[in-house]
Amino acid sequence: MSGAARLPKPYVVRTALDEMLADLQEGDPVPAERELAVRFGVARETVRQALHELLVEGRIERRGRGTVVSRPKLTQPLSLKSYTDGALRMGRVPGRLLVTWEDIEASPALAAALSVPAGEPIMHLERVLLADGQRIGLESTYLPNHRFGYLRRTFDPTTSLYAAIRAGGVRFASAVERIETVLPSPREADLLESTTAMPMLLLDRRSLDTEGVPIEAVRAVYRGDRVAFEAVLTDPD
Amino acid sequence: MSGAARLPKPYVVRTALDEMLADLQEGDPVPAERELAVRFGVARETVRQALHELLVEGRIERRGRGTVVSRPKLTQPLSLKSYTDGALRMGRVPGRLLVTWEDIEASPALAAALSVPAGEPIMHLERVLLADGQRIGLESTYLPNHRFGYLRRTFDPTTSLYAAIRAGGVRFASAVERIETVLPSPREADLLESTTAMPMLLLDRRSLDTEGVPIEAVRAVYRGDRVAFEAVLTDPD
Repeated sequence: MSGAARLPKPYVVRTALDEMLADLQEGDPVPAERELAVRFGVARETVRQALHELLVEGRIERRGRGTVVSRPKLTQPLSLKSYTDGALRMGRVPGRLLVTWEDIEASPALAAALSVPAGEPIMHLERVLLADGQRIGLESTYLPNHRFGYLRRTFDPTTSLYAAIRAGGVRFASAVERIETVLPSPREADLLESTTAMPMLLLDRRSLDTEGVPIEAVRAVYRGDRVAFEAVLTDPD
Repeated sequence: MSGAARLPKPYVVRTALDEMLADLQEGDPVPAERELAVRFGVARETVRQALHELLVEGRIERRGRGTVVSRPKLTQPLSLKSYTDGALRMGRVPGRLLVTWEDIEASPALAAALSVPAGEPIMHLERVLLADGQRIGLESTYLPNHRFGYLRRTFDPTTSLYAAIRAGGVRFASAVERIETVLPSPREADLLESTTAMPMLLLDRRSLDTEGVPIEAVRAVYRGDRVAFEAVLTDPD
């Protein structure tokens, strides 16, 4: 075991901040950079770097002119359930803001994902996902018009799309999800009330029904400081 | 459908770059920023931003003084299989560099994860994960000494730990994985030959055996420009 004197300063500062945060409640103010630098006896730049890490990790957030302790991230289970189920499981009120609802023609890539001919009419639904009113993600869903065009007349885009699809008699049997990290475009950052420097989680999903026919293709960008994914894996043998 | 004149320039440049990359092969040089700005008739800053996005997404990478087209990301399946299986499935040669192999005392959090008393001796194995010699991740594994201490005498840390654990008669029955995005610490960035500005995928895993006893706790940081995760979901009903 090495003595504290041998540990690098960024590590010492981060550990001290972690201990400090453990004693604070959600919404509590975080002391100013200058004050922390004096308290830990380090350069302000060292404190600034550690606070930036905590900001990206969603442990703290800016509020007005100050910085406060964040609430825990929304943990989204990787499952065939909807965003609504994931939010409710965490005790958060789910919501959605409609950004775009348009008809497009399937690009070759989208046509392949949905097993339709290129140029086929596709419904594109783009929504901001909310949890307790906070913007946490931006979701684009692509659905073949020939099958789901009726949703134009019946669907309220501030509610669960999965519930509406299921109500139409379609059952989600499987999905493939790909997870990456990206920086958002300026438009995505604006819609998520974040910045282009904030790492985001990118989720690409393709869902199939019980016949193996694609239901939807989804591209969703989640704020990295507000969302985590969780998977429960079991041995198939 | 809107005309090209109405589209924002960053979008136009990004689309043009995507089309250009689609015609290039892995390792091909990417034209210089100045040349692309002239070709697209936009400011260099607009090109710089688009190239930065592509760098973070792992589509292009710096090589020497130039920039080249990257190879596709390593897609790691979310499964109970080892890193070795994931790499081989992608046709990459897996490898590992040992960074740390030490005995520590279980912190309260680690003790809870491994269902052992706080202070219990724990083996900590930290390795850089390689794919075809490229550094793609940094993995810290924590194993209770009382059960796995014998690995000190038998295990080659450049090989698959899961294979060694299985060879000892232990079967992985389930695991919970949590995925987030983080910026690496300076030490993590150095070990991954990257920078503290490159978003990384953070994976926390806890694996249980067939008796429900924790086998390991893992904290792994993967380069966001080189790794994606993939999950196949099915309806349990």
